[in-house]
Amino acid sequence: MTDGRRADDVTGRSGRTTEGTNRRHEVVKENTVGSLVLPVAPTRGRLRPLGLDEVRITGGFWAGRRHTNVSATLGHCRDWMERVGWTGNFRATAQGRAHRDRRGREFADSEVYKLLEAMAWQAGTLDTGTLDTDITALTEVVAPAQEPDGYLNTAFGHPGQAPRYSDLEWGHELYCHGHLIQAGVAQARTRGEGELTKIARRAADHVCAAFGPGGIEGVCGHPEIETALVELARLTGEQRYLDQAALFIDRRGQGTLTDGEFGRVYFQDDLPVRRATVLRGHAVRALYLAAGAVDLAVETGDDDLLDAVVRQWEAAVARRTYLTGGMGSHHRDESFGDDFVLPPDRAYSETCAGVASVMLCWRLLLATGEPRYADLAERTLFNVVATSPAEDGRAFFYANTLHRRHRGAAPAVDAVSPRAESGLRAPWFAVSCCPTNVARTLAQLPAYLATADDHGVQLHQYADAEIATSLQGGHGVALCVRTDYPSGGNVTVRIDRSSSDRPWTVSLRVPAWTAGAPAWLVDPDGTRRTVPPGMAEVTRRFRPGEEIRLELPVRPRWIRADPRVDAVRGTVAVQRGPLVYCAESVDLPDGHDVDVIRVDPAAPPEDGTDGTVVTAGQITAYDGQRGEPWPYRPLDATAVAPCADRTEIVLVPYHSWANRGPSTVRVWLPVVEPHRAAPPDSTPTEK
Amino acid sequence: MTDGRRADDVTGRSGRTTEGTNRRHEVVKENTVGSLVLPVAPTRGRLRPLGLDEVRITGGFWAGRRHTNVSATLGHCRDWMERVGWTGNFRATAQGRAHRDRRGREFADSEVYKLLEAMAWQAGTLDTGTLDTDITALTEVVAPAQEPDGYLNTAFGHPGQAPRYSDLEWGHELYCHGHLIQAGVAQARTRGEGELTKIARRAADHVCAAFGPGGIEGVCGHPEIETALVELARLTGEQRYLDQAALFIDRRGQGTLTDGEFGRVYFQDDLPVRRATVLRGHAVRALYLAAGAVDLAVETGDDDLLDAVVRQWEAAVARRTYLTGGMGSHHRDESFGDDFVLPPDRAYSETCAGVASVMLCWRLLLATGEPRYADLAERTLFNVVATSPAEDGRAFFYANTLHRRHRGAAPAVDAVSPRAESGLRAPWFAVSCCPTNVARTLAQLPAYLATADDHGVQLHQYADAEIATSLQGGHGVALCVRTDYPSGGNVTVRIDRSSSDRPWTVSLRVPAWTAGAPAWLVDPDGTRRTVPPGMAEVTRRFRPGEEIRLELPVRPRWIRADPRVDAVRGTVAVQRGPLVYCAESVDLPDGHDVDVIRVDPAAPPEDGTDGTVVTAGQITAYDGQRGEPWPYRPLDATAVAPCADRTEIVLVPYHSWANRGPSTVRVWLPVVEPHRAAPPDSTPTEK
Repeated sequence: MTDGRRADDVTGRSGRTTEGTNRRHEVVKENTVGSLVLPVAPTRGRLRPLGLDEVRITGGFWAGRRHTNVSATLGHCRDWMERVGWTGNFRATAQGRAHRDRRGREFADSEVYKLLEAMAWQAGTLDTGTLDTDITALTEVVAPAQEPDGYLNTAFGHPGQAPRYSDLEWGHELYCHGHLIQAGVAQARTRGEGELTKIARRAADHVCAAFGPGGIEGVCGHPEIETALVELARLTGEQRYLDQAALFIDRRGQGTLTDGEFGRVYFQDDLPVRRATVLRGHAVRALYLAAGAVDLAVETGDDDLLDAVVRQWEAAVARRTYLTGGMGSHHRDESFGDDFVLPPDRAYSETCAGVASVMLCWRLLLATGEPRYADLAERTLFNVVATSPAEDGRAFFYANTLHRRHRGAAPAVDAVSPRAESGLRAPWFAVSCCPTNVARTLAQLPAYLATADDHGVQLHQYADAEIATSLQGGHGVALCVRTDYPSGGNVTVRIDRSSSDRPWTVSLRVPAWTAGAPAWLVDPDGTRRTVPPGMAEVTRRFRPGEEIRLELPVRPRWIRADPRVDAVRGTVAVQRGPLVYCAESVDLPDGHDVDVIRVDPAAPPEDGTDGTVVTAGQITAYDGQRGEPWPYRPLDATAVAPCADRTEIVLVPYHSWANRGPSTVRVWLPVVEPHRAAPPDSTPTEK
Repeated sequence: MTDGRRADDVTGRSGRTTEGTNRRHEVVKENTVGSLVLPVAPTRGRLRPLGLDEVRITGGFWAGRRHTNVSATLGHCRDWMERVGWTGNFRATAQGRAHRDRRGREFADSEVYKLLEAMAWQAGTLDTGTLDTDITALTEVVAPAQEPDGYLNTAFGHPGQAPRYSDLEWGHELYCHGHLIQAGVAQARTRGEGELTKIARRAADHVCAAFGPGGIEGVCGHPEIETALVELARLTGEQRYLDQAALFIDRRGQGTLTDGEFGRVYFQDDLPVRRATVLRGHAVRALYLAAGAVDLAVETGDDDLLDAVVRQWEAAVARRTYLTGGMGSHHRDESFGDDFVLPPDRAYSETCAGVASVMLCWRLLLATGEPRYADLAERTLFNVVATSPAEDGRAFFYANTLHRRHRGAAPAVDAVSPRAESGLRAPWFAVSCCPTNVARTLAQLPAYLATADDHGVQLHQYADAEIATSLQGGHGVALCVRTDYPSGGNVTVRIDRSSSDRPWTVSLRVPAWTAGAPAWLVDPDGTRRTVPPGMAEVTRRFRPGEEIRLELPVRPRWIRADPRVDAVRGTVAVQRGPLVYCAESVDLPDGHDVDVIRVDPAAPPEDGTDGTVVTAGQITAYDGQRGEPWPYRPLDATAVAPCADRTEIVLVPYHSWANRGPSTVRVWLPVVEPHRAAPPDSTPTEK
C-alpha cells in the first residue's frame, strides 16, 4: 500500500485473525510472504494472489463500477431483500413461523449471504466503517435462525416444512450453506473472525456431520459448497473441510441425483468430474463445480483432477462460448448448448455464469500461470459482468442477449421481474442471483489484477492501481499503474519501491486480442520492442521512479466466427481492445431498428467520438418485404432487392447498451451481399 | 361413398343422432346437404366440409400412415397409458384414492380423451367394429370417475387434492374437459350419441354452470375448451355452449390469470383476442385459442373476430414459422419467438403445435375458401405431423429440430422420456401429448382432403381417394383421385358419378410451392394450360369417366430464407414438392456428421434414387480447426482454409430422418464460400 495509514490499518486487522488460520499461514509462509485479505487463497500454485490490502484500484473503468457498487448496489440489494421478505425469512424462522410466512424461492437465503460477502470484501477496501455496521446488523438478522446443530436454512426442516435434505436436486440447502461459508470467510479475511464467521463454521461443521462418512451419501443439485469448504479449510487449516469437499467432488457423477426433466447432465451428475471432457449442463452449476474442483486439486496436489478441469475449460471455450465470454445458450435449462450452438438472439449468457467463469479463470490462472485464463476473465468482466448492472447500479440484466429484435417496455422500477425476458435491466428478480453476484465480484475485483511469484509481480488486468507486496526474502516492492484502458491501450507501470538491489521481474499480460496487431513494450531504459500475446517480462534491478510502458493496439477490428457457429454465418462483429461493440437502435437514424443494418467488411471500422466506433454501412429498407406472406422462396425466383441507403453506422460498447431507454441491439452485423442486382420485377412468393 | 353398404351404415348411424342435434341439421340443411361425420362442422363459411363417410383415402403416403395409426399407434397409446397409470387414475378416483395413487402430470386425463377421440374418428372409417369395443371398454374406465355434477378430473377436487379450479393457470381442468367433449363429439358424429357423448355433455353442462354468468370469471391456462364447446354447440344445437365459448374468448386477455415466470403472454392473457396482431406465447395454446376463436366467429357471424385471427395468422406465417411449417422456436416456454427468431438448431416446432396449426388452417380454409390455408396445412402435415411418428408408429418426436449436431443415444424402449431432448423418437413422454394428437389427426385426415360449395367440389390435399357427396339440389357426384403425390406431381381426377346434367365445377389447389415452376392442367377434352398457384377450376357438364389431370412440377429446388431469418444466413435448403429435405449423417461417407457439408447453389439439386435428392457439394475437413482454442478471429487475420473434398451429397425427406439409428441432421445447408484462397500460413488465433 502506498498509503501508510491504510497499510497500518490492514496490518492491524490481519493480525486479528484467529488461531484457526494458523495452518494456512504456515503453508503460505513456506512458499511466499502473502496477504491474508484474499478471496481465494490457495496453498499451492504457480502464482500467489495479492490481497485487497496489496492492490488498490485508484481510477478508471473499474473504479467507477466499484464506486457505484458501494454507493448504490449494496444498499439497493439490502432494500429489496427486506421488501420481498428474504431477510424476513430469517426472522420468521427464528420465530417459528417460516412454514407460514416464508417468501421467495428455495435459494433466497443465499442472496443474503452473497450480499454479506460483497459487503465484507468491499469493507476490506474502504476507509470507513459504514459497511461494518451493516454487516453486523444483517448478521444479527441471520444468526437467530441457525439451529443448535449448525443447520441454517429458512425453507426446510422446520415444523410444517419439508424435512432437511429431502430434495437434494432442487432444495439448494448445501448451496446456501456454501454461500454462508463464503461470507464467513470474507469476514475473517477482511476484519478477522467475527460472528458471521462463527455462524459459517457451525454450518460447515453441520455439513461435515450430515454428509461426511456414515452420513447422507449425496450431493447438492447446485454446486457451491465444494469451493466454499475448500476456502474454509484454507482459512482454518482444518483438514475435515477439505475432506468433505473431496467427498462432494467424488460423489458427483455417480447418479445420486434423480433424472429430472432436464436430465442428470443438468446437475453435472451424468459423469464423474474426472471423466467429463467439456463443461455441460446448467452453466452456473458447471462453472461453480469446476471452480471447486480446481480448489480441491490445488490443495491435494491432484494434477489429474486439475487436468480434467483444464480439458473441460478448453473445450467449452473453443466451442461453447460467446464472443462476449458469455456462457450458456439455452434459456430452457440455463445450460450450455451443444458445440457451436451459440445463437445471438437466444443467447442466455447468464450474468452469474459470467461471474462463475471469472471465478474459474482466476483459480486456473493461479494454479497454472497461463495468461489465457486472464484473457477470458478480461473478456468476461468487460462484456458480461460489466454489462449486467445499469449505469446507476440499481438494475440488472439476468441474461445477456447478443441480439434483441424488439424494444421491450422498461420493467417497472418497483416490481419483481421474471428472470430473462426483460428488455431493459430490471431492479429485482424472482430469482435474483445476479445483483449480489455482481456486487461480490466487483467487491473482490482489485484482487484479480495482479499476482506475485518468486521472481516478481505479474499484471493480469489493467486499471489505474497501486500495488505493494513483499517478494521472496521480504523484498518489498510497490508499483503504480496508470492507464487509459480499455478506451486506450497505454499502460505505464512505475516502480515506486524496490527494497532490494537484486533483479526482479515485472510481467505484463499482452492480451490474446492483440494477435496480428503488434503490441509494444518500452523498457525503463527506453528500449522498445514488439511483444506477442502472452506475458511480456522486464527483469532488472528496478530503481524507484523507473517506468515500463506497454502500448496495446486498441483499435476497432472486424471479427468473424468459426463457420460452425451457424447462427452468425455471413456476419461480422467489432471488437476494440477487450470490448465487444454493438449496434443499438438509438444510434440509428429515422427510428430504425438494428435489423436493417448491413456492413461492408472491406471498409475497416474506425474510432468515433466518445468511445464509439463508426463504420460505413447500409440501411436496408425492408418495407417492400414487410408484407411478404412467407419468408422462404426458391433461389431461382428473382428476389425483391431491398433498396439500401449508404450510411455511417455508429457502434457502442456492448456493456453500455440499454442505458438510453428501450432499444434493439445486435453484436453480429450482417455483411452486404456482394452482387445484388435489382431485378426488373418481382415474382410471387411461394408458401 | 362408393361402397353402398358402408354408405348405408353411415346413414343409419347418422339417423341415430339425438333431438339435441336438430338445430345444426336445420342450419346445415338451409345451406347445404352435408355429412354428419365431420370433425369440424361449421354452420356457416365459404366451403362446406366433407365427412369421413364422403371421403376415403385409398392408397399412397397417408393411407400408409393411417394404417400404422390403427394397427400400431392406437394400441401403443392404450398400453402406455395403462402402464404409466393414466387410465388407472380414473379407477383410483372412482375408488376415492386419487389423492394417494394418482400418476402423471395435471393434464394426463386429456391423453385418454384424445385417444378416445382418435379411436372414434378412426372407427368411423373402418369396416370392422374392433375399435368400438375398445372405446366402450375405455369409456367404462373413465365414466365412474365423473362427479354427479358433471365435473371430471382426476387431479383436483377430491379429498386430499387441491380444490377444483384452484389453479386455473396450470391445472388444465377446462383443457381436459375440452378434450373430453371433443371425444364425445367424435363418438356422436361417427356412431351416434353414446355413453362417451353423455359423459362429455354432462361435463360441458358443469363447465357452463361453473364458469357461466355468475360463476367463476376465469379462463383456463391452456385454451381448448373454446373449440370444444363450439363443436358441441354445433352437434347439439344448444346455444349455451356457444355462449360459454364466447365468454371464454372474451375473457381472455383481461388479465384474469396471474403473471407467471413466462409472463401473461404465455397464456395469451396479455391482450384480448380481437386486439392481438400476431400469434404469440405458448404455441399450442395460441393455436388452439385461435382455432376456437375462428369457430366462434363463424357461428356468430363475427367478422371482426375472424379478421383478427386472420391477421394474427398472416403475421405468424410471414415471420414466425419454420420452413417445415413448424411453429415455436423457444424450448423454455414452448412458445413463438420474436419475429424471425427461427434458429434451426433450437427449433422447438412442437408436434402438437403442428397439429394445432393444421386445425387452425382447416377452420380458416372453411371460413374463407382461400387456398393459402391448405398450402400451410399441407406443408405442416408432411413436414411436422408426418415427422413425429417413427415408421413403426410406436415412437414419436415431441419437438422437431431442423438441425441436430450430435448423435444421441436411442431412448430406452421401455422408459418415459423427457419431452424434447431425445435424439431419436421416444415411445412415451412424461408429457405425452404428441402420440395421441398425431393419432387423432391421422384419424380425421380424410376429412381434410376436399370440400364442397354450391358450385362443386374442391380438392385441397392430394392422395389416392374416393369422394362422393351431394351438391346443391341433391345432385350426387363421385370422384376418384389417383396420384403419385408427393413423390410425383401427377394427379388424375376421374368423375365416377354426376347425377345431373347441369354444369358444375371441380377445383384443384395448385400449391404455392409451384411458384416460378408452372403447373399444367389438362381438361377432359384434352386442353392443356398452365395454372398459377391458387385454385384451378374446371367447370362443365361432367360425364362419368371424364378425367382432369393436374401436373405439378415436383422437382427439387433450392430454397433461401428472408435475410432477416438470421440463423440461416448463408445457407440454402431443398424442397421438392411439399416435402422439405435434409442431410442426415447416415447418408454421408466415412462416418462424417452433417456439419462438414457445404453445397454449391449454382448446381441444381437433382432427383436421386428411392425418393432421395442428390447435389454436388463438399465435405469440409475441420480437423485442422478442431484444436482451435477460440472460435472467433480478426477478419484481417489469415484463416486456415479447410481442405474440401468434392462429393455427391444425398438428401432425404425430412419426415423420414432418424429412422436408421442415431444420426445428425440439418435442413439448412451452408453454401460454399466463393473465393476461398488457401493462405501460405496460419496466424495465431486470439482469445
